[in-house]
Amino acid sequence: MSPDVTLGEFEFDCGESVPDLRLAYEAYGEFTGDNAVLVCHALTGSHHVAGRRRRDDTAGQAAAWWDDIVGPGKAIDTNEYYVVCANVPGSCYGSSGPLSEAPDGEPWGTDFPAVTVGDWTRAQRRLLDELGIPHLHAVVGGSVGGMNALEWAKRHPDHVDRVVPIAAGARLDAQCLALEAIARRAITTDPEWQNGDYYGEEPALDDGPTQGLALARQIGHVMYLSKASMEKKFGRRSAGMDAARDSFELDPAAGFFPYREVESYLDYNGERFAERFDANSYLYLTRAMDSYDLAAGYESDAAALAAFDGELLVVSFTGDWHFTVGQGEELAEAGRETGGRVAHHVVESDHGHDAFLVEPEHVGPPLADFLADGITGRAVTDTTETDDGGDFAPVHTSLFSR
Amino acid sequence: MSPDVTLGEFEFDCGESVPDLRLAYEAYGEFTGDNAVLVCHALTGSHHVAGRRRRDDTAGQAAAWWDDIVGPGKAIDTNEYYVVCANVPGSCYGSSGPLSEAPDGEPWGTDFPAVTVGDWTRAQRRLLDELGIPHLHAVVGGSVGGMNALEWAKRHPDHVDRVVPIAAGARLDAQCLALEAIARRAITTDPEWQNGDYYGEEPALDDGPTQGLALARQIGHVMYLSKASMEKKFGRRSAGMDAARDSFELDPAAGFFPYREVESYLDYNGERFAERFDANSYLYLTRAMDSYDLAAGYESDAAALAAFDGELLVVSFTGDWHFTVGQGEELAEAGRETGGRVAHHVVESDHGHDAFLVEPEHVGPPLADFLADGITGRAVTDTTETDDGGDFAPVHTSLFSR
Repeated sequence: MSPDVTLGEFEFDCGESVPDLRLAYEAYGEFTGDNAVLVCHALTGSHHVAGRRRRDDTAGQAAAWWDDIVGPGKAIDTNEYYVVCANVPGSCYGSSGPLSEAPDGEPWGTDFPAVTVGDWTRAQRRLLDELGIPHLHAVVGGSVGGMNALEWAKRHPDHVDRVVPIAAGARLDAQCLALEAIARRAITTDPEWQNGDYYGEEPALDDGPTQGLALARQIGHVMYLSKASMEKKFGRRSAGMDAARDSFELDPAAGFFPYREVESYLDYNGERFAERFDANSYLYLTRAMDSYDLAAGYESDAAALAAFDGELLVVSFTGDWHFTVGQGEELAEAGRETGGRVAHHVVESDHGHDAFLVEPEHVGPPLADFLADGITGRAVTDTTETDDGGDFAPVHTSLFSR
Repeated sequence: MSPDVTLGEFEFDCGESVPDLRLAYEAYGEFTGDNAVLVCHALTGSHHVAGRRRRDDTAGQAAAWWDDIVGPGKAIDTNEYYVVCANVPGSCYGSSGPLSEAPDGEPWGTDFPAVTVGDWTRAQRRLLDELGIPHLHAVVGGSVGGMNALEWAKRHPDHVDRVVPIAAGARLDAQCLALEAIARRAITTDPEWQNGDYYGEEPALDDGPTQGLALARQIGHVMYLSKASMEKKFGRRSAGMDAARDSFELDPAAGFFPYREVESYLDYNGERFAERFDANSYLYLTRAMDSYDLAAGYESDAAALAAFDGELLVVSFTGDWHFTVGQGEELAEAGRETGGRVAHHVVESDHGHDAFLVEPEHVGPPLADFLADGITGRAVTDTTETDDGGDFAPVHTSLFSR
């Protein structure tokens, strides 16, 4: 099991409080006073960033989810940096959330306060205080973890030198908001959800509306892949007779049609996910992502970032339609507007949003060099360096936004 | 009510039969021997193509769905052409399908045979025989209706002079197959589905798993719009307090967050759709679309089209990711390969797949001119005419495929 800390009473942005916020976290390397790097996990990730051994507390894709990037001699080199990652409040891997125990001894369920990315950031700040880390060399995060990193630049601009949002943006667009909303409805319309009050005597990750949660995850998988990567990975191929077709009850007429590889992939991964993640946490964390808006409380994204005078590396992927290259460029533009030192490093990739997890060979080098040398790092490129940088600019006219 | 015909015993591609296939259809204009145009409706459309008055049998978007295109003096001019449209077998607007009465006096439900686009085409051929129409001037269809049009060129190449697939392709790609599969699971996991046996004493369109069907439709709406059109139409705006938030039970934590316009749109349209469409038909028709492959039984798309020596107009839309411009170009290439007279007319549009319904001003002129003069029609353009035609070519390297 990972260490955890209890941070006392914590008031969430929504105004509600819990009497004693618990955070599960993991730390790697040795703290030397100026080498702390905070890693922020994505929606369904955990504090368990790296190290493929042991662990009962995380599983599947939440376990050692960035082992290719974080470790001794890797891009975020734990021989050099002291790396900390905390499971965010509202999640289900040891930190306080719907699955954890409320003061009455029962799981919180949906009585747990609504959480925001701002809450995560404030909780991380308190964790670092506990650990005696006043200042961060860097905050790095992918997807909604990238929003979490941005929130550090906005909320604690003097506490961090370098910020790296990867496959992220200042806010979700309407298309992604729609898909997230549908995914939540798949959970809440599952009769097993029971208004969030579905936990058994020994509350477990696989309690509750497993079919609805599996459906929600299936929608997520489509968002995380690109059209091209799905075509390459699955095409229209039949999964063959061996493939389990029993995850979901299918319509009787289905018998005449093939069970395709893409369905088999979705069913398998949906089912596995429902075993390892709490459905209420999925509702909470997607709401936090949906509601995040870098500009909230400010005039603009640029204004929100104005007080941060560290360096910003935005990493985006050409095949990502969850957070597009256009959104990455908007973010970089916002950083540049107030004279910030910013690089927008675009990775050519067909892997879609998942690229930040599955292309360590393209993410590692710019990340390592940025941590060492900032935006002048050797492997770091910037869209302003190339003639066609303008192609990436405004999301509304970008091809990616169609 | 529309006319309907009973066509006697009909054996489906799956090998099962119904004793007396019924087709509801609509005809507009006067038949003069060589002026018949068959219109093929999309997934959830009906035979009721045009004419905004009367009608108890179709509603919502199924009613007069192409009234901007079909009618006196319109692009498909009913003063000139005899226009026929039939509700496809498996649908729920009067033709035989799961909702219709089986020989035992009960609704067929999922005992109705699986249907294919080939079945639709053969049924249409028999309907035209009944009506005394041996030969068609043209077959026109949008989305899966475009696949239906292609199937005419493949199956009855000598019975039609001009074929117009609009916002269509030779087959669905893996990304769309995935979303369709998830949509079906939303229906079959709704406990009200009851293995398809959900009809009341007086079977009606709104019987059954309305929440699952609404969710399926919500997924469809995302597929029919583009990223850009959703951003413009909804952005991240809150729907305001007036918006009904009661279509779906929401998680209690939702109270802290806005109910957004995009959610309100999805909820409203999902609910309306569940009132007007049969859930089993949705399963049947999406399976027909998913399984369609122009090349089936042939070496290639080109081989499947080789016997057709009429003219082919492929119309595609730049913002459509359900059937991309790249897929349109692949189709046109297949037609060109065997020396066919083909034009691929690309419409610049941010409207996504819906463009074929909502941009009559861009669809009408090339369609009208093609019906009159073939690919030499004045408003018809072709990708081979422009230098950048190559940009549209192979779907795998197209930006749209990312």
